Amino acid sequence: MFIVDCDCHNYWCSATVLEPYMDGVFKDMFVRGEKTGPSGAFPHAHRPWFHPEGFARHDINPVEEDDNYRLMKEKHLDKKGIDAAILTGDEAIEASTLANPYYANALCKAYNDYLIDYWLKKDDRFWGSIVVAPQDPQLAAAEIRRLGGHPRIVQVLVSHGAQRPYGDPFYHPIYEACAEMGLPFAMHLGGQGGVNSAPIGAGPSTFFWETHAILPQSAMTHVASLIAQGVFEKWPELKVIIIECGVAWVPSVLWRLDANYRALRKETPWLKRLPSEYFRSNIRLSTQPLEQPANVQHLWATLEAMDGENTLLFASDYPHWDYDDVDNLHIPPAWRAKVLGLNALDVYKRIVPPAAMLAS
Amino acid sequence: MFIVDCDCHNYWCSATVLEPYMDGVFKDMFVRGEKTGPSGAFPHAHRPWFHPEGFARHDINPVEEDDNYRLMKEKHLDKKGIDAAILTGDEAIEASTLANPYYANALCKAYNDYLIDYWLKKDDRFWGSIVVAPQDPQLAAAEIRRLGGHPRIVQVLVSHGAQRPYGDPFYHPIYEACAEMGLPFAMHLGGQGGVNSAPIGAGPSTFFWETHAILPQSAMTHVASLIAQGVFEKWPELKVIIIECGVAWVPSVLWRLDANYRALRKETPWLKRLPSEYFRSNIRLSTQPLEQPANVQHLWATLEAMDGENTLLFASDYPHWDYDDVDNLHIPPAWRAKVLGLNALDVYKRIVPPAAMLAS
Repeated sequence: MFIVDCDCHNYWCSATVLEPYMDGVFKDMFVRGEKTGPSGAFPHAHRPWFHPEGFARHDINPVEEDDNYRLMKEKHLDKKGIDAAILTGDEAIEASTLANPYYANALCKAYNDYLIDYWLKKDDRFWGSIVVAPQDPQLAAAEIRRLGGHPRIVQVLVSHGAQRPYGDPFYHPIYEACAEMGLPFAMHLGGQGGVNSAPIGAGPSTFFWETHAILPQSAMTHVASLIAQGVFEKWPELKVIIIECGVAWVPSVLWRLDANYRALRKETPWLKRLPSEYFRSNIRLSTQPLEQPANVQHLWATLEAMDGENTLLFASDYPHWDYDDVDNLHIPPAWRAKVLGLNALDVYKRIVPPAAMLAS
Repeated sequence: MFIVDCDCHNYWCSATVLEPYMDGVFKDMFVRGEKTGPSGAFPHAHRPWFHPEGFARHDINPVEEDDNYRLMKEKHLDKKGIDAAILTGDEAIEASTLANPYYANALCKAYNDYLIDYWLKKDDRFWGSIVVAPQDPQLAAAEIRRLGGHPRIVQVLVSHGAQRPYGDPFYHPIYEACAEMGLPFAMHLGGQGGVNSAPIGAGPSTFFWETHAILPQSAMTHVASLIAQGVFEKWPELKVIIIECGVAWVPSVLWRLDANYRALRKETPWLKRLPSEYFRSNIRLSTQPLEQPANVQHLWATLEAMDGENTLLFASDYPHWDYDDVDNLHIPPAWRAKVLGLNALDVYKRIVPPAAMLAS
């Protein structure tokens, strides 16, 4: 079985690793300007909800920069037999919270160059996500065209926190560039605060555990928007990947979208199919954190209702606090080959495993 | 079988019906001041998403005020054998969108007096919801105490659109008053715009059908907030009823709440039980609009995961466009007596049916 981890976080100890990849006024701002914290902090607006334990697993304690790879290799890649890991960075997507889109873009470019120069060279199992700042879709599109042809870059990544629902025409230059480069568009949980819209409805929640439970709301909005605005009619081959937003909410949203569309479709005459059909053909979700009900049959009925056998991609979320173990993933056993690897290979076309590995 | 319709809308043709129940400066503002539309419009901020067909069923066309009751009796109560109808008004809950809390409170008071004086006298099957303006929880509490002892008032009603998540301590005076009067606190879909927080995460969606599909997000926020803030530890007997927000999203939210609470419970040391346990004991949802997947077994597994047999209350949403017919409610047949009536009787204690009707 070929295992693809679709959400593997390549940490840094200090954001100063980006300095060599910056120049001009933005390097000056990055080195000398105000930051979110002390030296080494990445500049971004911050959520008002603070994780009460910190995000990293307690057994992952890098001291020097190279420890980040060493620990990942030892505690995750080698130990769990990961054959391909999609690197999703960590703080880089938080650039989406910055008011200055030019600075945000410069930070993303620096991260992408660092990713290619430092991380992708370290291990043949690594595949990269280029991060873009969606505040300026034209600049984001230029960055996608600048690096999207790199043979080990497999997706374009943003935070699921956003200024507008991602179907908005404002963002269409990003999809044009993704389609041109043959790359999926992925959003990862994050990017709360700053210029981004409130991530949940009805006002700011209070506690971290409470908030984290309902952050998938932003992903629901994006799913509805991408479908309703006809993004998948304009770019039928575009795949959108939703990372770390849970999965069990999907059927409830699709059922309402289908019912409402059937009754009121005159609002969006460009659509040719039911919302749930666009979902199945164009949207994928990473599994972590997979919901854990008392009765696994309730989860499996939900996964079946969203065609999880074909729409789910395994992700570990290494090295975060709520890491999902590939050996302990409670999906229907018959789905394992697809969810652990084959579905990812169908989306990330640049990952071509040895034929022998697929047969095993 | 005793059938309780937990969301039956008592319409008016013109909001001028409230004039006799107002006085002083607010009557002057109501009669002479700016409104949302022409004469007869109820003053409230409005959503930027407009229903492309209007909300009412096309076969319900009242011309004079008394037509509203006549049509409801003919096309719904008598025809469908409704034994008790919880009246939920219509535009009154939109007072929650107004910046001026004193005016909002005056409008709610006028509506409540009109409800008792005009509607509740018309039919022995009617039971009332007093509407309050949550912008000023102290005024709202006073209104609950003013009318909450009326023998045919069975709940306190607000919009699910809100300035803050309803668990916020800001709102606790409302729950204190509800507990004192022995009334459930109910929220009904609505109240988008004005001073209320954005109803969904990640920015404003675009189309009505798209938006309506994801409006349950605000209800998710309220469920998480009411539980996390310990409202059900402070008022263990308080029942919260969520109306017209769909139901299939509930398990996905409870699974995440339980998982996060288990890991990070130190944030909320006042809680003694799992979030899903507070849900089962204190929160109820009305069924309409019940989700309609292609495979009803997917829905039933979802309903089972939320203990729907005990947490669901039948609602028709008469006379709205997406009316649910009691004769065509796709719930497990064995649950019908509970969902159609017994669960409501357990929550609305003032409704006491003849013993003979319960036996049949």
